[in-house]
Amino acid sequence: MSGWHGWFTIEHREAHSQARTGRLATPHGTVETPVFMPVGTQAAVKTLSPHELRAVGAQIILSNTYHLYLRPGSAVVAAAGGLHRFMAWEGPILTDSGGFQVFSLASLREVTADGVRFRSHLDGSEHLFTPELSMAVQRDLGADIIMCFDECLAFPAPYDAVAASVERTTRWARRCHRAWREEGRPDRQALFGIVQGGVYADLRRRSAEALVELDLPGYAVGGLSVGEPAGLTVAVLEAVVPLLPADRPRYLMGVGTPDLILEAVWRGIDMMDCVLPTRMARHGTVFTSEGRLTVRNAAFARDFRPLDPACDCYACRHFTRAYIRHLLKVNETLGMRLTTIHNLRYLHRFMERLRQAVRADRLPEFRAAFYAGEGAALGFRPPEPATLPGA
Amino acid sequence: MSGWHGWFTIEHREAHSQARTGRLATPHGTVETPVFMPVGTQAAVKTLSPHELRAVGAQIILSNTYHLYLRPGSAVVAAAGGLHRFMAWEGPILTDSGGFQVFSLASLREVTADGVRFRSHLDGSEHLFTPELSMAVQRDLGADIIMCFDECLAFPAPYDAVAASVERTTRWARRCHRAWREEGRPDRQALFGIVQGGVYADLRRRSAEALVELDLPGYAVGGLSVGEPAGLTVAVLEAVVPLLPADRPRYLMGVGTPDLILEAVWRGIDMMDCVLPTRMARHGTVFTSEGRLTVRNAAFARDFRPLDPACDCYACRHFTRAYIRHLLKVNETLGMRLTTIHNLRYLHRFMERLRQAVRADRLPEFRAAFYAGEGAALGFRPPEPATLPGA
Repeated sequence: MSGWHGWFTIEHREAHSQARTGRLATPHGTVETPVFMPVGTQAAVKTLSPHELRAVGAQIILSNTYHLYLRPGSAVVAAAGGLHRFMAWEGPILTDSGGFQVFSLASLREVTADGVRFRSHLDGSEHLFTPELSMAVQRDLGADIIMCFDECLAFPAPYDAVAASVERTTRWARRCHRAWREEGRPDRQALFGIVQGGVYADLRRRSAEALVELDLPGYAVGGLSVGEPAGLTVAVLEAVVPLLPADRPRYLMGVGTPDLILEAVWRGIDMMDCVLPTRMARHGTVFTSEGRLTVRNAAFARDFRPLDPACDCYACRHFTRAYIRHLLKVNETLGMRLTTIHNLRYLHRFMERLRQAVRADRLPEFRAAFYAGEGAALGFRPPEPATLPGA
Repeated sequence: MSGWHGWFTIEHREAHSQARTGRLATPHGTVETPVFMPVGTQAAVKTLSPHELRAVGAQIILSNTYHLYLRPGSAVVAAAGGLHRFMAWEGPILTDSGGFQVFSLASLREVTADGVRFRSHLDGSEHLFTPELSMAVQRDLGADIIMCFDECLAFPAPYDAVAASVERTTRWARRCHRAWREEGRPDRQALFGIVQGGVYADLRRRSAEALVELDLPGYAVGGLSVGEPAGLTVAVLEAVVPLLPADRPRYLMGVGTPDLILEAVWRGIDMMDCVLPTRMARHGTVFTSEGRLTVRNAAFARDFRPLDPACDCYACRHFTRAYIRHLLKVNETLGMRLTTIHNLRYLHRFMERLRQAVRADRLPEFRAAFYAGEGAALGFRPPEPATLPGA
């Protein structure tokens, strides 16, 4: 779509890596990249209000088509005036295609040429998801960025299965592209293709080349962060990113730990999402500048310091480890809210520092300092180099 | 305690009732009465942050000694610098004595001359609560207002059982008074006595007179809102309030519906607390100017109005019934937070209107309008007159 040329502006290319900073202009405002997107599965980032999301520095959030399709239904969201108005989040939103949940959460009935017949994980009701339905639902939800309906296999998956899945994902992407252009809102919603292909270099190439032909507003790398070692994640990025058009945003799906964010940005990724930082927080584990804290531990019962003395978030400005531990132990939801606020603030500050390092051409220094200090304290090591089969 | 003369200032006495407005000067700020106190059972009003509490208009909150004694333990709270600092609530706090929960929640082992031996409702561990321990725990928690350790019987209870219970509560109050003066903080913590006596006028009189002899900073009416008809609640107030010193604050424990708040204020009550508005909210029912809404109902699935178009709370300013219903249906805790904010804001605005009516000598008009309009829509009727046995 010619309308999408120039919607993503690259501002700086880092001198020593593939990293770049940029700006994504959406109908709901501009996003500075590289960006981390918190996940609001059911039209809410668990435990948070949209104003708290804004306060932690969130620029854009992700929401899940599969979940919203089941509850409250996309017709309700459309009647509300779209997802932004429904959930009172005025910033940009990205919706996924539903594919990942259909293949992982639902009871799968049948993958046909047309789409996927499945049973809801909630009540067992039967549904048929097709590329066209995913596009229609995402059109009704009204996100700024929407995703092609894809198939995401578990790791490891045999070559032949991945090859067949890439074929299917490619055919579905073409149907999504058509539906988006003919019945969608190609003027207001940016459609991203999703490169699949597992850890097989030639299948990744086949997938990427077919999607690039469609000249989409953006490209995602899918099928990663599904259990493979970090070295393979990185190797796939090194194989795929050079195949994607440099002037389109690149989105790595499902990555949200500081180490992999850093490695992905180094390799030219602009956008990431993950439920991990918020899920970890609800289970009582937080990232801090001094390492990981499992706040529920007895060690913190009388620790009257903030979660992270170096943090400026609402939780760290007002509450102690001892109080947050108490809240988590007695199941007061404020506890999960405070750890969620903290972890998201931590990650958004990390992204700010990362963007600064890119702009200053100091990503190697940032990376070395990270693995020598804060990253090591958090338990992160540089990924072990790995080679892709078929590379 | 002579230090407590004048800590409560009556500003206006309503011309047609026993109602009055006043100001309670505590070490953590001044409270305008009549006042409703939200309940923060475990050092948090469920789902809310202290800043949200402030925003709904909360002036003073209640917290439960029994719960805090078990978790995190009063020594932890004391080490934090007291409950205010522990939970980051800078306003006044009242703690109850633990008596109500010991008799209702715990497995009761034995009531002795010394106190009550019970097993924790959490882990079955055995504890002995005495008046002196209740005072020591409440001293460590550091609330602005603390309560005498009392026995609260269920309704109905036979005369002899209530008589024995009043004797016990009176003896315990004397011991609390002594412990407070000798080992407590009588300079910073106001001790309230609790009038018991069930629905028996002579026992209520006996209880009140014994407590008044102690010249306490304030007096509570306990043993109500335990299942008795509203007419009896009101009749007990009419029997007890005239026996209490006019210049001390009067606190009706466990009342939190607008109708009973109004009736209690009419009869000279200055303070009230109840978990009902917050518990109702978490179950999805809210008070509005147009009646009660059970927001979970399917009727609200596409209702894009605020909970109450006449309300100025955070929930009503930003979110619709449809969205809040969705959140409640999918168990997103933001839903319970929004309904809690709304119900507390509703009640605090109700208290503001009530104080205005008292100051303007218009309480009869306010009461008539309430039962003819908003109160009727909420399902409230004036209590049926009732007579106390032995009155």
